[in-house]
Amino acid sequence: MKIEAVDLFYLAMPAVTDAGDGSQDALVVRARGGGITAWGECEASPLTSIAAFVCPMSHGACKPVSASVLGAEVSKPEDIARIAAAIEWESMDLLQAAHTWSGIEMALWDLLGRSRGEPVYRLLGYKQAYPKQPYASQLFGDSPEETLRRCRSAREAGFNAVKCGWGPFGRGSVKADADQLAAAREGIGAEGTLLIDAGQIWGEDVAAAEARLPLLKDVKATWLEEPFHGSAYEAYGALAGKAGSLKLAGGEAAHNVYMARHTIDYGKVGYIQIDCGRIGGIGPAKRVADYAVSKGVTYVNHTFTSHLALCASLQPYAGLAGHRICEYPVTPQPMAWEMCANHIEPDKNSEVRVPDRPGLGIEVDIPALRKYSVDTEIKAGGKTLYRTPKIA
Amino acid sequence: MKIEAVDLFYLAMPAVTDAGDGSQDALVVRARGGGITAWGECEASPLTSIAAFVCPMSHGACKPVSASVLGAEVSKPEDIARIAAAIEWESMDLLQAAHTWSGIEMALWDLLGRSRGEPVYRLLGYKQAYPKQPYASQLFGDSPEETLRRCRSAREAGFNAVKCGWGPFGRGSVKADADQLAAAREGIGAEGTLLIDAGQIWGEDVAAAEARLPLLKDVKATWLEEPFHGSAYEAYGALAGKAGSLKLAGGEAAHNVYMARHTIDYGKVGYIQIDCGRIGGIGPAKRVADYAVSKGVTYVNHTFTSHLALCASLQPYAGLAGHRICEYPVTPQPMAWEMCANHIEPDKNSEVRVPDRPGLGIEVDIPALRKYSVDTEIKAGGKTLYRTPKIA
Repeated sequence: MKIEAVDLFYLAMPAVTDAGDGSQDALVVRARGGGITAWGECEASPLTSIAAFVCPMSHGACKPVSASVLGAEVSKPEDIARIAAAIEWESMDLLQAAHTWSGIEMALWDLLGRSRGEPVYRLLGYKQAYPKQPYASQLFGDSPEETLRRCRSAREAGFNAVKCGWGPFGRGSVKADADQLAAAREGIGAEGTLLIDAGQIWGEDVAAAEARLPLLKDVKATWLEEPFHGSAYEAYGALAGKAGSLKLAGGEAAHNVYMARHTIDYGKVGYIQIDCGRIGGIGPAKRVADYAVSKGVTYVNHTFTSHLALCASLQPYAGLAGHRICEYPVTPQPMAWEMCANHIEPDKNSEVRVPDRPGLGIEVDIPALRKYSVDTEIKAGGKTLYRTPKIA
Repeated sequence: MKIEAVDLFYLAMPAVTDAGDGSQDALVVRARGGGITAWGECEASPLTSIAAFVCPMSHGACKPVSASVLGAEVSKPEDIARIAAAIEWESMDLLQAAHTWSGIEMALWDLLGRSRGEPVYRLLGYKQAYPKQPYASQLFGDSPEETLRRCRSAREAGFNAVKCGWGPFGRGSVKADADQLAAAREGIGAEGTLLIDAGQIWGEDVAAAEARLPLLKDVKATWLEEPFHGSAYEAYGALAGKAGSLKLAGGEAAHNVYMARHTIDYGKVGYIQIDCGRIGGIGPAKRVADYAVSKGVTYVNHTFTSHLALCASLQPYAGLAGHRICEYPVTPQPMAWEMCANHIEPDKNSEVRVPDRPGLGIEVDIPALRKYSVDTEIKAGGKTLYRTPKIA
């Protein structure tokens, strides 16, 4: 079938704050072809990603993403890879292209899966989808007491793994971090899995990160995530060499497969975290999963938005039984929750699994798309390049 | 002084073609502070980079570039670095931010230089600016005859170095490439410097590139540029190991200092090519130049646009006497030429040097800005986020 239309919908909460909470807005992608409607989601900055879809061409290697997508043929997985290669070439100098394409790519997998009546993970070559252990992904509280409360809540909600990140962590003294970490461990309990996300706070300062290693070991953290800038592989590698049994996690900023591979090869992470909404979608993420397996590294999704993004992000490693942990946004904003008509919820064993449904397995809630729509219009050179499309 | 205003102007030729010619549009930046007006230029996709400046915040680590710039204090070079660090943090998840910020950063150096009556290279710590050998940067012709004619023209125009790139090179047979290379060598003459730009044509296929090595040696090419995807460091490194005296060149896609360093460390290039309009401006480019010196690698600018961009791109290595070669766009589109009121032209020794004038040393031509302006408007959520500003 041909890709007949790709429509982008910018959603947001009525008020967006500067909290480190990626569920406050979304760019939802609707792709249509062969009478089928399918969905995907880009991460992040909806307006910028829309611009990268509709912008006028700058030259032969700086075309809008739309140029390689609209009208293209998609009847098998290789077609999606072919379009990806076209964008890599034709939009080479358009930096945002990878983020824009990511959500479209997901929607094309959804389209293909729906047209074949197959879940996406089967199209990727997996025979079955294994259950994952969701970790409650949340922010550190402003105080240790607040962190304790949040981690307790996650545990009471049935999670036996929690990630605390951002907020005050790494910004103050080592003692302050120690108190936060102790609170997090107390909240999740002695047996719980505790993950810590430093949110790039140390730039490439290995010594600052190293000073926290004993604390992280004291609270038996499973990983330390993003201690450094996403491209500071040498800092990662140096810290990994000192961290012993504590593993590093990183890779969410990767906007191509190379960057993820380098995070493994040079950064020596033990967990490679891929955001399907940034790396170019599900196809490149699957290539990273294969690479991680070959290198003895554990693949994990990076998702801090909706269950549409979550469901897409689980597909690339759905069939890897040993790669069990999965990021699960536990306190999404109402927009991010309501935009999906169905959700992936932990079962009685506190496990989640991708829906056994065609495509990505998520239906979008049309009224919620209307409710949270940010009406947008872009004009250039006397032409209207973009106007929020009709939702239904 | 405070940054009182940053205005972005989208310029383009009336018709933009899909030739690999980056001089067909431009995003010009005007910064104002302390009663001074200064200029810079982003590379590329003007509309997308405008969107990254004005987009609504998505969350605390995905703010528009404007949030870190407007109203900030700039009275010394360290202030520019401080704003850069703020953007790296506050716009972490906004991929396009690096390109948008690059042109603004240039304009801030221009502002600082104008306010102090000093050329930017002196603010960077260089005592003097050394002359550079410009190479005529042009595309391969569709036929060897056309390539021969173009290289002859460059030589007759006084250039003793030429770069041929893109076009049919690498797309057909090895024999076809051999004919193109022979034509280029004949055109520039036996003594001329010949540089070849493969424009990422081989992806990460080392064997395909390796098949061209004997041809490149036969014509005594000085470098082979961008044989592979900009992040395919392993392919670069593998080819460098087989290339002997032929050096690889690359790095233009780097959108942070890490990527440039990795191109040197893992990609084993002999020439590191930095586009100040992409890497985050002049400050990060200077850090790459310092790193190149420490590693025995030659720094070269990447510029295929206007003389404003050219002049910015020469500053980071103006004081490096031994790093002589410089990319010089020899057949820019009228827009890219006319937008500057003064230009850097080769002297009687076929050398160029940065103007001995305050700031970047280039004045913008206001009537040309009007002539090529692409009127643009962006609205979201009931607000006009951008409208082409008044030019004067």
